[in-house]
Amino acid sequence: MDDDVPLILTLDDSGSSASAPLDDLDREELPNENGGSYDVINDTSSPAAGDCCAQQSSARHNWEMNYQEAAIYLQEGENNDKFFTHPKNAKALAAYLFAHNHLFYLMELSTALLLLLLSLCEAPAVPMLRLGIFVHATLELFALIVVVFELSMKMRWLGFQTFIRHKRTMVKTCVLFVQFIEAIVVLVRQTSHVRITRALRCIFLVDCRYCGAVRRNLRQIFQSLPPFIDILLLLLFFMVIFAILGFYLFSPNHSDPYFNTLENSLVNLFVLLTTSNFPDVMMPSYARNPWSCVFFIVYLSIELYFIMNLLLAVVFDTFNDIEKRKFKSLLLHKRTAIQHAYHLLITKQRPSGISFKHFEGLLRFYKPRMCARERYLTFKALNQSNTPLVSLKDFYNFYEVVGLKWKAKRNREHWFDDLPRTAFLIFKGINILVKSRMFQYAMYTVVAVNGIWILVETFMLQGGNFFSRNVPWSYIVFLTIYGVELLLKTTGLGPIEYLSSGWNLFDFSVTLFAFLGLMALAFNMEPFYFIVVLRPLQLLRLFKLKKRYRNVLDTMFELFPRMASLGLTLLIFYYCFAIVGMEFFAGVVYPNCCNTSTVADSYRWVNHTVGNKTVVEEGYYYLNNFDNILNSFVTLFELTVVNDWYIIMEGVTSQTTHWSRLYFMIFYIVTMVVMTIIVAFILDAFVFRMNYTRKNQDSEEDNGIVLEKEISKEEVVGIIELYKRSSAAAETAQLQKIVLQMDKYGQMSTLFLGRRSRTKSDLSMKMYEEEIQEWYEEHSRKEEPQMPLQEPASAPNSSLKPLSLRQRSQTVI
Amino acid sequence: MDDDVPLILTLDDSGSSASAPLDDLDREELPNENGGSYDVINDTSSPAAGDCCAQQSSARHNWEMNYQEAAIYLQEGENNDKFFTHPKNAKALAAYLFAHNHLFYLMELSTALLLLLLSLCEAPAVPMLRLGIFVHATLELFALIVVVFELSMKMRWLGFQTFIRHKRTMVKTCVLFVQFIEAIVVLVRQTSHVRITRALRCIFLVDCRYCGAVRRNLRQIFQSLPPFIDILLLLLFFMVIFAILGFYLFSPNHSDPYFNTLENSLVNLFVLLTTSNFPDVMMPSYARNPWSCVFFIVYLSIELYFIMNLLLAVVFDTFNDIEKRKFKSLLLHKRTAIQHAYHLLITKQRPSGISFKHFEGLLRFYKPRMCARERYLTFKALNQSNTPLVSLKDFYNFYEVVGLKWKAKRNREHWFDDLPRTAFLIFKGINILVKSRMFQYAMYTVVAVNGIWILVETFMLQGGNFFSRNVPWSYIVFLTIYGVELLLKTTGLGPIEYLSSGWNLFDFSVTLFAFLGLMALAFNMEPFYFIVVLRPLQLLRLFKLKKRYRNVLDTMFELFPRMASLGLTLLIFYYCFAIVGMEFFAGVVYPNCCNTSTVADSYRWVNHTVGNKTVVEEGYYYLNNFDNILNSFVTLFELTVVNDWYIIMEGVTSQTTHWSRLYFMIFYIVTMVVMTIIVAFILDAFVFRMNYTRKNQDSEEDNGIVLEKEISKEEVVGIIELYKRSSAAAETAQLQKIVLQMDKYGQMSTLFLGRRSRTKSDLSMKMYEEEIQEWYEEHSRKEEPQMPLQEPASAPNSSLKPLSLRQRSQTVI
Repeated sequence: MDDDVPLILTLDDSGSSASAPLDDLDREELPNENGGSYDVINDTSSPAAGDCCAQQSSARHNWEMNYQEAAIYLQEGENNDKFFTHPKNAKALAAYLFAHNHLFYLMELSTALLLLLLSLCEAPAVPMLRLGIFVHATLELFALIVVVFELSMKMRWLGFQTFIRHKRTMVKTCVLFVQFIEAIVVLVRQTSHVRITRALRCIFLVDCRYCGAVRRNLRQIFQSLPPFIDILLLLLFFMVIFAILGFYLFSPNHSDPYFNTLENSLVNLFVLLTTSNFPDVMMPSYARNPWSCVFFIVYLSIELYFIMNLLLAVVFDTFNDIEKRKFKSLLLHKRTAIQHAYHLLITKQRPSGISFKHFEGLLRFYKPRMCARERYLTFKALNQSNTPLVSLKDFYNFYEVVGLKWKAKRNREHWFDDLPRTAFLIFKGINILVKSRMFQYAMYTVVAVNGIWILVETFMLQGGNFFSRNVPWSYIVFLTIYGVELLLKTTGLGPIEYLSSGWNLFDFSVTLFAFLGLMALAFNMEPFYFIVVLRPLQLLRLFKLKKRYRNVLDTMFELFPRMASLGLTLLIFYYCFAIVGMEFFAGVVYPNCCNTSTVADSYRWVNHTVGNKTVVEEGYYYLNNFDNILNSFVTLFELTVVNDWYIIMEGVTSQTTHWSRLYFMIFYIVTMVVMTIIVAFILDAFVFRMNYTRKNQDSEEDNGIVLEKEISKEEVVGIIELYKRSSAAAETAQLQKIVLQMDKYGQMSTLFLGRRSRTKSDLSMKMYEEEIQEWYEEHSRKEEPQMPLQEPASAPNSSLKPLSLRQRSQTVI
Repeated sequence: MDDDVPLILTLDDSGSSASAPLDDLDREELPNENGGSYDVINDTSSPAAGDCCAQQSSARHNWEMNYQEAAIYLQEGENNDKFFTHPKNAKALAAYLFAHNHLFYLMELSTALLLLLLSLCEAPAVPMLRLGIFVHATLELFALIVVVFELSMKMRWLGFQTFIRHKRTMVKTCVLFVQFIEAIVVLVRQTSHVRITRALRCIFLVDCRYCGAVRRNLRQIFQSLPPFIDILLLLLFFMVIFAILGFYLFSPNHSDPYFNTLENSLVNLFVLLTTSNFPDVMMPSYARNPWSCVFFIVYLSIELYFIMNLLLAVVFDTFNDIEKRKFKSLLLHKRTAIQHAYHLLITKQRPSGISFKHFEGLLRFYKPRMCARERYLTFKALNQSNTPLVSLKDFYNFYEVVGLKWKAKRNREHWFDDLPRTAFLIFKGINILVKSRMFQYAMYTVVAVNGIWILVETFMLQGGNFFSRNVPWSYIVFLTIYGVELLLKTTGLGPIEYLSSGWNLFDFSVTLFAFLGLMALAFNMEPFYFIVVLRPLQLLRLFKLKKRYRNVLDTMFELFPRMASLGLTLLIFYYCFAIVGMEFFAGVVYPNCCNTSTVADSYRWVNHTVGNKTVVEEGYYYLNNFDNILNSFVTLFELTVVNDWYIIMEGVTSQTTHWSRLYFMIFYIVTMVVMTIIVAFILDAFVFRMNYTRKNQDSEEDNGIVLEKEISKEEVVGIIELYKRSSAAAETAQLQKIVLQMDKYGQMSTLFLGRRSRTKSDLSMKMYEEEIQEWYEEHSRKEEPQMPLQEPASAPNSSLKPLSLRQRSQTVI
């Protein structure tokens, strides 16, 4: 968003005041209004134009520095970067700018991915991707060197002191060091040793700028741990009690293999907690005495149905609490950032607000891609008062307003309004047809019929050769109908309006795929059926019919980024366990490996001949191994699903030691934590959403945040003047276009609409409305003794600030 | 609580004004003050003593009627009985009183239980309990006749019109009719036919007065159904799409038995949703093409991890909402009941409140067991003003106050205060010791050591003959320590204070059991080990140490009644399914029954000889059958736990038709609903509790509701006067005892403490404090146009009331 900050400025900076710390620039001496001649808005402050050139240039340069620092503060506020990592001098600023742009982030990400992907090619490698030790070790070394470079940039920016204090970076450095040594050892010995530390490679991914959500998830998981562990202990406690009880009760029965020792008793009750061995573990004792089922029913009722749900309740509650606290601290952090930026932008002469000139300067650094028109609109949207200045109170809305996309409100209702009369009438007719309920319901009927058709058709195929070369006529019929619908809608609504709805986009892509499928079929292409099976997806359109589904699907799309980051978090855990699993269990299970264990059947692979036919008896479980990282992932997924996980555990255990069980049990507990968090998250998100809709039942149909602003011709001319003076040709030209447009339609002003989609933060803002006010008051009360922020009369750019700033950052962290 | 309303009154009523409807009694003519001579409180209203005897007696009689009706209103408010079932005349009142006492309720319950238990002895009977057809059919007829009698009483009370309108009663009547006919048919034919309608017997249990909680649960389940079904459809929709997809993808693989037809594909994906066949269903295709695991991973991620959790979220949300609405309607219902009662108790002369005399009259009917002292204390606790009357505003707290148990505040701090000096010092020392933290932590250490000891001891036993006849010395040592602790605590605190704490009670009973175990061991009794295994329960004491556990356990105990009712609800569903299962599947599975199915191994029972030894191969699953109701319950529990349920399903299916799967699938969905509700309930209860503790962190240590009231000697003497006049000897004697006590200690007044445990309703009251005020206002606004309740100046006993009452009840229902 904000990372294309021009490097020129940094060079410029190092050229003129290289060694002066950024914060220590003597801002008191700044000519606070620069002559005021750049101001578009009728400014009453005394213009001091005609100063000497050199001073003006220096003043402008100092202002540029202020703009940049303010922009950095706002970025830090947005990204929740703590202020103690704020660049402190020009050198740090250079490094900061270097390390904060998408190119650098991409490098970070790709290095981390490269390191992770290396495990595909290392020792127990995926057969197709196997690489020589020399090759993959060199690749690893290369990647590690890139990481070293990244870290050195970070050190340059943070300074050694802060670098040491930053925990995550320190851990990363240590891991890097270990990895480096190991990579060199591998390269020297030309053979892989046991490298469990590879599991730590994830930290490079976690530390990426793009993986901020994963870091947040991990933090949330660790914060939920204490109550989780408490309840886990309760769970284990009951397990031990029941294990002793079970041992006493059932070990006299010699046909019961599940309780013959205390260890077995414990392990089997642990597995029973996952229900994975359920009726089986009960059967031998149940066969002897029917009343022994009471033991198992009581155990499951207490452990599975009560304490496990308690676990969810506790995590859910903690999660709720954390979400709220996180929202609060983020909000206050943003507020502090805005305060910092504000104080860099106001002047001594006019301490009550920011003028457009300075605001424009800030946006030049904060959002370089924004055009002049949008900058002015953002300024106008922020400015609630009638004065030409944005006060601190207005400026607090900065983050809500800056994300808006501005568009001139259309004068024409439909795209075809300018066409000749006949064409207009035709298109108008189509438009009315397409928007009618009748048409919609007709389409729903077609989709439903199509669904039933597909079902019946598939049912009739029963084992025949259903990939016949003839295109089924039903397929063509339905596809034609969908095609006609698509055509009508596109012409009736205009392509832009048509594609602006998510649902239409969905229809469009599904129809397109179906058409591709038809093409593939016509030309006898092989991967055809992958496309044909997408056809039932059309049926998803039926879910638009009911409000609850629309709600659910909307929430789903809103949640998607968060879900993806949770999935990624889970994958990181998978990676760690996969590496450990591969190091210990690679190659231990194979067909017929476990004939001595109780799960021998599942690992059997017998190929015997009955009469003339060869009968293959396959247990298949030998496929669930740790032979390479892909297999390990699948195996771990199976363990996550839990059912029959003990077969995998017992298989591996019978080939290694019984301590291997620890690996599986720990994995179960870890996934239980992550899964509980995921459940709590989904619960929280949906309950929150439903509460929200219940609270705002009247205004339910608004899709996103919309703001309206009118700009008069004089204003535009004024801005053009301003840009002309600073010789920004592109901006001037663009603004002049607006003036021309206005002239053409003979308007004195144009209405602009600012739009953005609603985020979770907006919802939270509305939900916690009352509490937020309290937080603000509490926060400003805490601030006051240190710095009277609300008093604009105090010297805005005083050299005292850096100190108080650091003090404040302590309270935020 | 309130059900021992004396029958005499009813007879008295029918004797004097038999046919006059209760509500139509011309209360305008009541001598509103009865001369005021009964009033204890200094009454300023003109005493009209010396009226003719007959008039006074009639007035008193009318007052008695008012008391009784007010008491009935309050009962209805408490039990959430709708006011349209209010008895309308003297005959109805007689029936109402007959049908509202514990004897009648017990009869109801026992009849229902008898009917349910009959299925133990009917056709596929539990072997030991088999009864002849003649016997059990006669028993059934007898029980049904009792139900007829109950229903006829209810009809007498409700009147035919209301009886017809009352849905639950109507359903019960229809079921009764069907059951009656069937029972006669069985008796005539002397053979049982297919009687699925037996599943409906549950309704007799559900309709019992004692099963109100079950009814509420069922209502809640049905109310949660609509959103549940919506999401279920989404789930099934994706299932169908994936079934078609899976069929296309995997049916070309002939070694894959799971997707060879569309039906199989659907069934297996349904089972996969329960994860019950997970790695197996994937294995054949995974063995062919490793990438086919993507299909299963995507399916499980969408269905199991997303939509199933969505289901929970939706149910949880609905549940939350319903709980709040239920609380609101109950609260308002109670309020209306109180208003009704209030208007029956005030008089024309003093319309601003209820005097003690009338309040006492009400309590005589509402809580006949309450003693005179408690009645007066309740009155005092309600009366917030300085006047001798309880206003409507005060009277609104009736339900909160009437449950308090009153006790005179002790003058002595310890039980041994009256003992001689030496004894006092000894006991005081023990008291201080027992209350010290040191002692507590010492005991925790002993318990922990005991725990580890038991674990180690059990671990060492490993398969030996551990029921040796020697008493292990460790057992005696620990038991002695616990015994000494128990003794010290009892003497130090006094038995009453000791046993008033739940935790002490727990310690006491566990120690007692351990002692019984020792006794049993000493006398070589057989069932000894059942008691010895209770020893680890001592370890539960360790959980007192941490606040979270105390919280959890407290909540657990608070939740217990509700959990029990949920369990009972589940059992009722079990019963229905067990009956249906028995009718269709009794006797279909047996050893080696299913050799043609895919699950043959699980049902195998082979007895073959290898060398000299007989080896038994047992699959045991034939034990999971529907051969009698107890077996059915165990089988259904196994289906509830879900793991490997498809083995049971496939076994039964292979012996019957493939439509049997419907039974199992429906059962799965029903238990899913009930289980989701249970989870939502636990979640809700704990989150609520935790929010509550977070909100009231300062006052966390209060255990229950406590109220203090002081009574002076004059007041007691005044009440004695009152009771003497109404010649209530028992009450007078009791009160005089208090006066004597006061005289003994030379006090002018005694302090009484009212105590009761806190209920969920109290918590809710505190949580929704602000909203409750809104509800009240909204409620009274709704009421106002119909009846100006807040205006005490209006005729309190006007004959207009019955009409307006019925109108109001409409708004409440």
